[in-house]
Amino acid sequence: MEFDTIAAISTPMGEGAIAIVRLSGDQAISIADKLFKGVGGKRILHVASHTIHYGQIIDPKTDQVAEEVMVSVMKGPKTFTKEDVVEINCHGGIVSVNRVLQLLLNNGARLAEPGEFTKRAFLNGRIDLSQAEAVMDLIRAKTDRAMNVALGQMEGKLSKLIQKLRQEILETLAQVEVNIDYPEYDDVEEMTHTLLVEKGTYVKAEIEKLLRTSEQGKILREGLSTVIVGRPNVGKSSLLNSLVHENKAIVTDIPGTTRDVIEEYVNVRGVPLRLLDTAGIRETEDIVERIGVERSRQVLKEADLILLVLNYADHFTIEDENLFKAVEGMDVIVIVNKTDLPQVIEMEKVKGLSKKHKLVATSLLEDKGVDELEEAIASLFFEGTIESGDLTYVSNSRHIALLNQALHSIEEAMQAVEFGTPIDIVQIDLTRTWELLGEIIGDSVHESLIDQLFSQFCLGK
Amino acid sequence: MEFDTIAAISTPMGEGAIAIVRLSGDQAISIADKLFKGVGGKRILHVASHTIHYGQIIDPKTDQVAEEVMVSVMKGPKTFTKEDVVEINCHGGIVSVNRVLQLLLNNGARLAEPGEFTKRAFLNGRIDLSQAEAVMDLIRAKTDRAMNVALGQMEGKLSKLIQKLRQEILETLAQVEVNIDYPEYDDVEEMTHTLLVEKGTYVKAEIEKLLRTSEQGKILREGLSTVIVGRPNVGKSSLLNSLVHENKAIVTDIPGTTRDVIEEYVNVRGVPLRLLDTAGIRETEDIVERIGVERSRQVLKEADLILLVLNYADHFTIEDENLFKAVEGMDVIVIVNKTDLPQVIEMEKVKGLSKKHKLVATSLLEDKGVDELEEAIASLFFEGTIESGDLTYVSNSRHIALLNQALHSIEEAMQAVEFGTPIDIVQIDLTRTWELLGEIIGDSVHESLIDQLFSQFCLGK
Repeated sequence: MEFDTIAAISTPMGEGAIAIVRLSGDQAISIADKLFKGVGGKRILHVASHTIHYGQIIDPKTDQVAEEVMVSVMKGPKTFTKEDVVEINCHGGIVSVNRVLQLLLNNGARLAEPGEFTKRAFLNGRIDLSQAEAVMDLIRAKTDRAMNVALGQMEGKLSKLIQKLRQEILETLAQVEVNIDYPEYDDVEEMTHTLLVEKGTYVKAEIEKLLRTSEQGKILREGLSTVIVGRPNVGKSSLLNSLVHENKAIVTDIPGTTRDVIEEYVNVRGVPLRLLDTAGIRETEDIVERIGVERSRQVLKEADLILLVLNYADHFTIEDENLFKAVEGMDVIVIVNKTDLPQVIEMEKVKGLSKKHKLVATSLLEDKGVDELEEAIASLFFEGTIESGDLTYVSNSRHIALLNQALHSIEEAMQAVEFGTPIDIVQIDLTRTWELLGEIIGDSVHESLIDQLFSQFCLGK
Repeated sequence: MEFDTIAAISTPMGEGAIAIVRLSGDQAISIADKLFKGVGGKRILHVASHTIHYGQIIDPKTDQVAEEVMVSVMKGPKTFTKEDVVEINCHGGIVSVNRVLQLLLNNGARLAEPGEFTKRAFLNGRIDLSQAEAVMDLIRAKTDRAMNVALGQMEGKLSKLIQKLRQEILETLAQVEVNIDYPEYDDVEEMTHTLLVEKGTYVKAEIEKLLRTSEQGKILREGLSTVIVGRPNVGKSSLLNSLVHENKAIVTDIPGTTRDVIEEYVNVRGVPLRLLDTAGIRETEDIVERIGVERSRQVLKEADLILLVLNYADHFTIEDENLFKAVEGMDVIVIVNKTDLPQVIEMEKVKGLSKKHKLVATSLLEDKGVDELEEAIASLFFEGTIESGDLTYVSNSRHIALLNQALHSIEEAMQAVEFGTPIDIVQIDLTRTWELLGEIIGDSVHESLIDQLFSQFCLGK
């Protein structure tokens, strides 16, 4: 494909040692060459690919030096976008990098849209859509495990699985077609039936296997939305501090992301917890007071994990009991805190209500029980399976939705076979499954979807 | 010189498209080679200098892919540090870049201190101290002009001037020595006297010329500390908003810099104004109330520029008059605001008190007069001279202090000559001047000073 030449700042904004302005497109090298003057007047128009050149960016209007730079020249197709790519390393700093970008824009480049470099990598066929999506997941990864999932997806692990399933479906469809074309054989109908059941069962099982990874995958990718509830003075803030301090917060607020919501990510044994901010914690005070009010319940329902804190040194109250009712059916870890003080709480009541939950005793004051709590959080969501490493995780909501639809349509196909529905109806269902799987890797997706997906990327990627 | 191999993240922390981990030192290439696996098993140990290689970073302990990267290999001495340098471009994102850095540290590299790459460039003789200092100024530059000053200094403009002056002094000292050694000539004393007066006058004039640029240079580098004063409800906040909105704030708060003080920089026609934060604006309310109190005066005295706001639609009060007294002798622009309303203010009084100041009429509500105000600010500090471009600005406080000392000692030398002081005393003063100028470019500076200077750098530079 032929595109115009785009440019963008590809490093985070801020004061740093190095900032990069990236160019991609047919004119990338010639535009950079207009501005670049190497040592001894060296030009970059005809240099070898994948080489680095030291020199200055000169403003052609004023002939003044605009910046001292290192320019990397990479010729397509062996580049990120498959197009000619030039990366200009400037001294970090906002004025410096903006000045270089401005000169490029004044000399023929267009400002890239968010994600446009990766979009070109996709449109030029270097990567498929699921790989492109993984690029952004990689950047946003909050933990090592999340990064490994993204890395695996970027390398095409998910793509290969999907392609294999689609191939199976395609071959089955072809075989069915052949069978229809040769009706002279007696056992065609039985053969077709057997084939469809066998292949359908296989595809269905594979999709189900992928979907089984999705809950964990999504947690790895997006973090576990976590709410701490409990009566006043049971140690909610101590718990928050303990989790944050022990594990060091991963992300606070980064310029460019929304300022309004400050989310605190905490990496607990590889599980990224997205802790509600202080306002959220304060909100839970209200929950205690207005328990039963629908809106308060809603806040809880949206959480993936509830940490319910009780006071070991106080009686088990009706408020505590109401909290248990409010979180019924959810993933809950019950924390009996303040074990450094003499027991007052009625533990048999707590145990009675905690049958379906994990129960951990802590003294956050004395830093006791935190290990057990972290272990409980990790095992609640991973139960050891994630350690196996080589599993392909589905983590992206779009992929999960498509897999669910594909599962639905392969199930319909198999039911149709079972009920002896005419074979062309079965073919329609199978084709639909094949299409839905194709959307995951970007085969036959609508342009507007592509635009929308890439617009969520960061600038310069 | 021989150093160990250092590594650091050289891009600002945050989510971006690209992050760079930089390595410098003898082992840079071999450490990177231990971790890198290129396409088709390609290694980077013996590749040509200034080339770029695509591949993966593999954790040697687990044999797992840690990241997909582009590795730039640059062999000394044609590098930033004059040592072997490897830059690893990873996908932006905190986990990704930390993982690569960690692997480098586990395989023989040491975490670089702030500014250590630039320090090596200095210690290895690629740049002198004033050039190294300019590197950081470049990164921190708030406006185009500030960046040009830094760029000029980094290219060695200041260094060359200083070296020339030092050379003059050295030659003079040598000539004096020669004269002393050949006392058989009759006119030695007169010759020496003439020489010293001539050369001394020249050196003194040059130092003075440099010092004359220092006020503007410092403003360009550090911004003009600006306070807005005025009675309540005259439009101080509107003025602040107008300056910020019209010119868009350059820096708010960037992670890594101090969180406590949020300074708002505004670029007014190339002049960076460092506006006091809201707390500062509030403080001026107190100043109005407690005018005459010494501490309040002090706040004003520390400012480089006062914007004194009056109300066109109200009488000129005793409080207004007190404000004029408080800012006597300072750089003040008097703003008569609310010209959209009928005049009430006694303009003859205002004009009488504003004789030494610029006077601008505005209606911030109707966005009138803001251009004139900006013009007034710019001309107050630059009066056109900065446009000439090629001037070498001294902007660094350390340089300014050293130039002042050097000026003092060359003046002492010339007085000594005038008073017929023995020539060896004059020689001491001249040598001192030569030494002081040397400290600017890092000749004969103490190691602890060097450590301290570079510790103010950002990480990875």
